[in-house]
Formats: sequence, structure tokens, C-alpha cells
Amino acid sequence: MSSLSYVQFVAGATGGWAIDSLRTVVGEPLPAASRLAVVESAGTSGIDVVWRLAGVVSSERYVTAAERDELRARQPLLGRSDADRAALIPIRKNDAWWSLAQDERRAIFQKRSGHVTTGLRALPAVARRLHHCRDLGEPFDFLTWFEYAQADAGVFEELVQTLRQTEEWAYVDREIDIRLSRS
Amino acid sequence: MSSLSYVQFVAGATGGWAIDSLRTVVGEPLPAASRLAVVESAGTSGIDVVWRLAGVVSSERYVTAAERDELRARQPLLGRSDADRAALIPIRKNDAWWSLAQDERRAIFQKRSGHVTTGLRALPAVARRLHHCRDLGEPFDFLTWFEYAQADAGVFEELVQTLRQTEEWAYVDREIDIRLSRS
Repeated sequence: MSSLSYVQFVAGATGGWAIDSLRTVVGEPLPAASRLAVVESAGTSGIDVVWRLAGVVSSERYVTAAERDELRARQPLLGRSDADRAALIPIRKNDAWWSLAQDERRAIFQKRSGHVTTGLRALPAVARRLHHCRDLGEPFDFLTWFEYAQADAGVFEELVQTLRQTEEWAYVDREIDIRLSRS
Repeated sequence: MSSLSYVQFVAGATGGWAIDSLRTVVGEPLPAASRLAVVESAGTSGIDVVWRLAGVVSSERYVTAAERDELRARQPLLGRSDADRAALIPIRKNDAWWSLAQDERRAIFQKRSGHVTTGLRALPAVARRLHHCRDLGEPFDFLTWFEYAQADAGVFEELVQTLRQTEEWAYVDREIDIRLSRS
């Protein structure tokens, strides 16, 4: 358990991030809210909670050791003082994706969709943390949290637009794109 | 969520399986109990519950499409009338395992430990269902449930003994071996 961490994203009237936009890319929407709190523990007793999504920082599912080492060498930490823009992108993949075997999903993920290659192009501008939630019975499979400086907004935009055009994204049946700023 | 199922193993005074033995292979023990209920849903209100372990039947993490197809073609379903023996083997793997990349874990799992090959040798005698629980914050990472006829007890014994001698099992830091009979 020591290498796991449970993280909650709580939208409502309070929290350290202002929600600048909340756009449904595909599937059922999420309600609008004004602020978001990132809570790195299990317990919270929030008032005026509009929605709450949770996930765990878990083991790597697709990247190879070489890819992991390259990502680690180039990726920045969360919480950089100049990174005052963030995005939270909850996604769910369909049953066709989850019924694929590991080698089939890996082939789509990197060989045919270049997920790691595209991610590396956004480094070191965009910090990223992936939270798994499929096994938790949550409404999404993944919650990805990104942080970047306003000056790097174009790098982030290219990252998400490129991924959305891949074969991998054809399996995404629910996606919300939430943009935030620290305040 | 449709392809997931949440399963609870509830040990106590009631349940359709008698616990014939409960042996700690490595790590912290589990308390003894007389019976076990397999509950294929989230809610239960048990009395005299000694321990309760839960997991989800989730996506495949290591097997290739070819291996999956071979397993599917040969593996029996749970609930065969002549399969009146069962085993529940909760295991946890250590941080060294979970910090490996996907390709490193896959290489240990099959190339160097022959996990799939060993599993196939026990088919069609031994039915098996794997439950993932690492991301759920449970005390174990996996709960594997096996069902077999008394006449095939030797096949099952060879399966577990062979796996325990592999390189993969060097990463197991907690394992309980629970044997049961239907009554």
C-alpha cells in the first residue's frame, strides 16, 4: 500500500483551483462548479460538493522500462510555482477496449497511437499525474491531472488534440475536459 | 462497469464452503474461521464475520491475445457439480514488484516463471477466477479462487507448488493458502 495514494478531486464552492471551463468531449456530462479541491487522502467532509471523483496513483500498466526511465528523466513534479494552469481530464474507455488482451492494448497505446511519444513531446513543460479508478467502481476509468504555465498552454493544447485523434481514443466513450487556474 | 464484478469472500460461521485448512505461507496470518461465503455483490451485513476480503474481476494485465484464447478454450467455468473442492489464495506482492515497468513484470511473469504455461497444465481440471484488489486499498493485491474435483487435487497441488518456486513468487510478501470443501 505504501506506493499507492488515494486522491480525490472535489468540485464545489471551495478549493485551491478555480474552474475556468468544463467541457464534455464525449458521453454524459458532469455538472458545472466554480472551484476544485485536490485532496490527497480518503476522508473529506465537504459542504456544497457538486461532484467528487477519486482514483489511485498505481503501478504502470503499459510503459516499458526504457520509456519509464525517459519519462522520469524529463517529467517535472507537480506544484511548480510558475505552473498556475491545470487540467483535469476524466476518461472512460469502452468494453471493447477492456476486453482486449494486454499485448493488443499495448500495441494500440504506443505502436499505433504513439501515446508515450506524444507525451514526451510535452515535457518538461507539462507535469502530469495519472489516477486509476476503474477497479474502484468509479464512473470513469482514469483521471489525469496536468499542470503547466500559461506560456506553455499551446504545448498542452497540442498534447490533448494529438491524443484525441489517435486510434486509442476511438475507445474513449466518456471524456470531460476541465481547465483550471490556481487562485 | 458492465464487465467488472465485485466479489467478497466472507469468513465466519456461515457460508456455502467449509474451511478445511488455513495456512500462512508467508507474511502476516489471517484468523481461523469455520466457513466461507462467496458473495458476488458489494453489500452484505454479516454477523459473526471473522474477516472479509474483496476484489474485482477486472481486465487482463499480462496475458497476450494468443494466451488468452488458449486459456479460454480450455478453462472450465466455476460451479461444476463435481468440483466440490476449492482454494482461496490471497497474495500480496512487494514494492519491488510494483515499481517494475510493465515489460519487466511481463518478462518475469511468463518468460522466466512460465505462469501461463503452468496454469495451462492444470486445465481443464482446475477452474480459476482472479480478483484484483490492489487499487481498492485491500490488504492483499490478488485473491485467486480455484475449484476442482477431489480426484484432481494432485493437479492443483502441483500447480501451486510449481508457481511458488518461480522467480515471480520471490516478490510475494504475503500469502495465505485456504482450502475448502462444498457442504
